[in-house]
Amino acid sequence: MTKNTSTASIALVHYPVYNRRKEVIASAVTNLDIHDIARCARTYGLERYYIVTPLEEQVTLVKKIIKHWTDGYGASYNDDRKKALDIVDVKEDIDAIKSEVEKKNGKKPKIIVTAAKKYVKSISYSSMREVMADSDDHYVMLFGTGWGLERAIIEDADYVLEPISGSTDYNHLSVRSAVAIILDRLFSQ
Amino acid sequence: MTKNTSTASIALVHYPVYNRRKEVIASAVTNLDIHDIARCARTYGLERYYIVTPLEEQVTLVKKIIKHWTDGYGASYNDDRKKALDIVDVKEDIDAIKSEVEKKNGKKPKIIVTAAKKYVKSISYSSMREVMADSDDHYVMLFGTGWGLERAIIEDADYVLEPISGSTDYNHLSVRSAVAIILDRLFSQ
Repeated sequence: MTKNTSTASIALVHYPVYNRRKEVIASAVTNLDIHDIARCARTYGLERYYIVTPLEEQVTLVKKIIKHWTDGYGASYNDDRKKALDIVDVKEDIDAIKSEVEKKNGKKPKIIVTAAKKYVKSISYSSMREVMADSDDHYVMLFGTGWGLERAIIEDADYVLEPISGSTDYNHLSVRSAVAIILDRLFSQ
Repeated sequence: MTKNTSTASIALVHYPVYNRRKEVIASAVTNLDIHDIARCARTYGLERYYIVTPLEEQVTLVKKIIKHWTDGYGASYNDDRKKALDIVDVKEDIDAIKSEVEKKNGKKPKIIVTAAKKYVKSISYSSMREVMADSDDHYVMLFGTGWGLERAIIEDADYVLEPISGSTDYNHLSVRSAVAIILDRLFSQ
């Protein structure tokens, strides 16, 4: 095994995702998704937390929130929050993330997605840890809002993580809870 | 080892907790704390999710939210949410939870708390799993809002879980993220 020099980022995708009628939509960015997931991503040492939305007004809103906590009043009020928000960025689509990583690292990132159901190519959390430990790639984990990522994105991904099984047949976690659990499973010491 | 017949509940405590100046206060209940944690608790098979607040207006508010999703329009709109909210209850203090459990089970529950720093009596997640697997007690996990549970509650608890270590020295998770991670560590299959 080589030394683990892989790095990782996370992206919260607001388009293309499904609504409850399985139509592809752009969902709304929520303030708490930005904060909760930024704090998680920072705790588990991720490089970047990307908010993906094509909607111009939403991009402006996210930038305003980031600026408040990293440059504005929030930065002096709460330094811990500044450290979390420092890693947040907003992109208009997933390709923009891939391009940024490729420009920086000289090669495309590997894409990991999570899905509520099991796919043929689903990978366990322990196997995913091993793959990352033996790699110098940059991994981008995509999480869908609404009723989940569009199917084509899941099919195009390099890795599909197994669904989180709790201890019941009920599995309707919020995306915030799912992110917390998955980062803990993949990146805890 | 006896068969695991232990059961568990969770409580989100809004009093007595600290504010950022280390004063004891009653924090405000938030709608998302109710939903996110209810969905998590339901996923991991917990018996009850108690919201603890002594403030009468907050009790009324929580009851109204629960009723909306279990009896009202929300129940027909979203059955998954009904199943989560069905386990939510509101109590004026921690003693009221202990009394309810004792009345039901014939003995007092064991209290587990989480704390951001390590205590002499801190227990690891794997040890806590073993303790519960070999017991027929009911375990109540207390989570503090604001800047954490009052010190006396931590000192009175039967078990103090180790702080969550991510993979950095940064550890400022939201209570929602901390609950998700801890339930996964203690109750995942």
